[in-house]
Amino acid sequence: MLARRMGRVTASAIMELIKTTAAGEYISFASGLPDPSLYPVDLLREITDAVLAEDGRAALQYGAAEGYPPLREWVAGMLRSRGLEATPEHVLITHGSQQGLDLAARALLDPEDRVVLEGPSYLAAIQAFDSYQAVYRTLPMDAGGIRVEALPALLRERPKLLYTLPNFQNPTGITMALERRQAVAEGAARAGVALLEDDAYHDLRFEGDALPPVCALAANPWAVYTGTFSKTIAPGVRVGYVWAQPELVQRLAQLKQITDLHTGSLTQRVVFQFCVRGYLEPAIRRFREAYRARRDIMLQSLETHLGGAARWTVPQGGMFIWVTLPEGRDAGDLLRRAMARGVVFVPGESFHPPNGEGAPARAGKNTFRLNFVSAGEDAIRTGVGILGEVLREGSA
Amino acid sequence: MLARRMGRVTASAIMELIKTTAAGEYISFASGLPDPSLYPVDLLREITDAVLAEDGRAALQYGAAEGYPPLREWVAGMLRSRGLEATPEHVLITHGSQQGLDLAARALLDPEDRVVLEGPSYLAAIQAFDSYQAVYRTLPMDAGGIRVEALPALLRERPKLLYTLPNFQNPTGITMALERRQAVAEGAARAGVALLEDDAYHDLRFEGDALPPVCALAANPWAVYTGTFSKTIAPGVRVGYVWAQPELVQRLAQLKQITDLHTGSLTQRVVFQFCVRGYLEPAIRRFREAYRARRDIMLQSLETHLGGAARWTVPQGGMFIWVTLPEGRDAGDLLRRAMARGVVFVPGESFHPPNGEGAPARAGKNTFRLNFVSAGEDAIRTGVGILGEVLREGSA
Repeated sequence: MLARRMGRVTASAIMELIKTTAAGEYISFASGLPDPSLYPVDLLREITDAVLAEDGRAALQYGAAEGYPPLREWVAGMLRSRGLEATPEHVLITHGSQQGLDLAARALLDPEDRVVLEGPSYLAAIQAFDSYQAVYRTLPMDAGGIRVEALPALLRERPKLLYTLPNFQNPTGITMALERRQAVAEGAARAGVALLEDDAYHDLRFEGDALPPVCALAANPWAVYTGTFSKTIAPGVRVGYVWAQPELVQRLAQLKQITDLHTGSLTQRVVFQFCVRGYLEPAIRRFREAYRARRDIMLQSLETHLGGAARWTVPQGGMFIWVTLPEGRDAGDLLRRAMARGVVFVPGESFHPPNGEGAPARAGKNTFRLNFVSAGEDAIRTGVGILGEVLREGSA
Repeated sequence: MLARRMGRVTASAIMELIKTTAAGEYISFASGLPDPSLYPVDLLREITDAVLAEDGRAALQYGAAEGYPPLREWVAGMLRSRGLEATPEHVLITHGSQQGLDLAARALLDPEDRVVLEGPSYLAAIQAFDSYQAVYRTLPMDAGGIRVEALPALLRERPKLLYTLPNFQNPTGITMALERRQAVAEGAARAGVALLEDDAYHDLRFEGDALPPVCALAANPWAVYTGTFSKTIAPGVRVGYVWAQPELVQRLAQLKQITDLHTGSLTQRVVFQFCVRGYLEPAIRRFREAYRARRDIMLQSLETHLGGAARWTVPQGGMFIWVTLPEGRDAGDLLRRAMARGVVFVPGESFHPPNGEGAPARAGKNTFRLNFVSAGEDAIRTGVGILGEVLREGSA
């Protein structure tokens, strides 16, 4: 009875793990959750009250599928500062960036279309592509991002879409170097391949200069860029955005209307007021400083407890570190033993597409992802210490 | 480059009309908008402030795809009072009931699957089905709803889904009689056809007793019921719900997660508090009383100005009256002349599916929909007066 697409829509192992361990007394490096103690609760309270007092009827009425016009304009300005050519007509407001990814996939993917992914990649995007019955090719990565020498062969296969997270990638924390961004942008544009750039973590940069979006580096009518206020204000408001050429934004807005008519009128106004009142920059600084401190503690703890026994990425921002164990070690096995000691993380296999041809068998079996922002500083030290002990026991 | 499904995703003529005329000085009977002066702005202000003060971090954090547990439980209780067997596990919280319709269609429809619709039916549902490449069969209606004698033949064609709006249907305002609900429920269950029941207007009943949901009248594992707080609190918060058997709710929740992770954490808590504090019933009464008064004025005005020149439905609730002109008259032509005089409505053709086999050619050409809740009482009198004049001119 269910549609064929549902054959590949299943419960996420990660989400089940996170649900199971959220209740107990675990030190969790597993989730993708920001630290809610950093959410600007009082400012949002003040602003929400003002929005309802001054503009209550409009804030509670239906709105345009494209989004609240002043917020579209504000986002366009922000995107120009990131290097994208953007007018309000380039912007669609969505219920979080996940919705941007889903709408782009829905607009572009027919069953059996090829999608080129970074290996590993963001699980919930892969799940969205799965639901449109995509097949995958994966691009290997190193500390500089996509290894672009692998790109020409994959582009010759005429994939429909190339999906990339160039900044502090989820799950690896890797940032793509400028010359590689250029190569990806030009390669996709030349091959007539749609480009889907997920920049959810853009503002969480701890050091170094911001790099331009891949979408800004070559003209491509099928380029789509997604972002969100979930990491810089709060995810519970569910406000994100899509950038694309105005013609494509119109098509995506038609889908958005079918999907849920429009993004919440109240929450869009709250986010807009938060931005225009100048609260966004200080909020970003607060997240950044707290997250940088935790990254440093986790890196130091990894050095102390896993030094010599594993390698890991050194992210310039974002929320995740990627750990690689020696070949032959099994992160799933490590997880089972760490859970018994009260520590959880997500094994790397979860982030590889199920049918990724060209990917080595059981890709990522010796890898895992650590979220360094959800747990407090002491919990990070304790948790990584336990990981080190469990890892040494396992090799004894 | 776009996916094949986009071939049938287009701008809605209605939405374009509504956009065009929203700016000007029109008397609009065209939109589907509730009257924002009835939104409980002050109560929502008070509650939102309390939610952020008392539960701010959770209200701004990510949440479960299924929805905020206390709201699922509250909705389950409300649905039991409507006659559905419901536990929290039967409920999924969505960004409005449009999202419930879209998720159900996404879970059930493969390309070329047959969908049985009332003729006419809700435009944005048809657009969602279009995007999943459905084909249509339409069921004729009269003042008692679906003419069930047409049902057996259509069910023998093995459609995938039957979509119905039994209460104060959009666009006709018709309510389906109890014995017909029974026949539809049993027919679909016996034929193994999924049932999608859209009950967005349930609480806007002006008179007569509530009738049980079609989904409550026969056991059908593929029954899905959608509802919303958009008509009883406010649409701008974007909170609706889906009822289905728990196994199907789990599958829909997996799709919901792919689509936008979850419904807004803050707005779900605001709606929940609105309900548990006992504000919902008075809010519903307020909408009901205002809308009933406007319905009565519109019916009276129709009698005065269109009496003898047209027929119309007498809705027991909801927001819409359906007008039928004599055979051969063209509501599109009437609209063009009415617009010149500052009055807009939506021609009935818009509510018939584009490829509805079995539907007469150009179905609904002599019909149109009037929204009786958006305009004030004086505007209703004036606007219907103008429609009467234009109609008489046209026949001169």
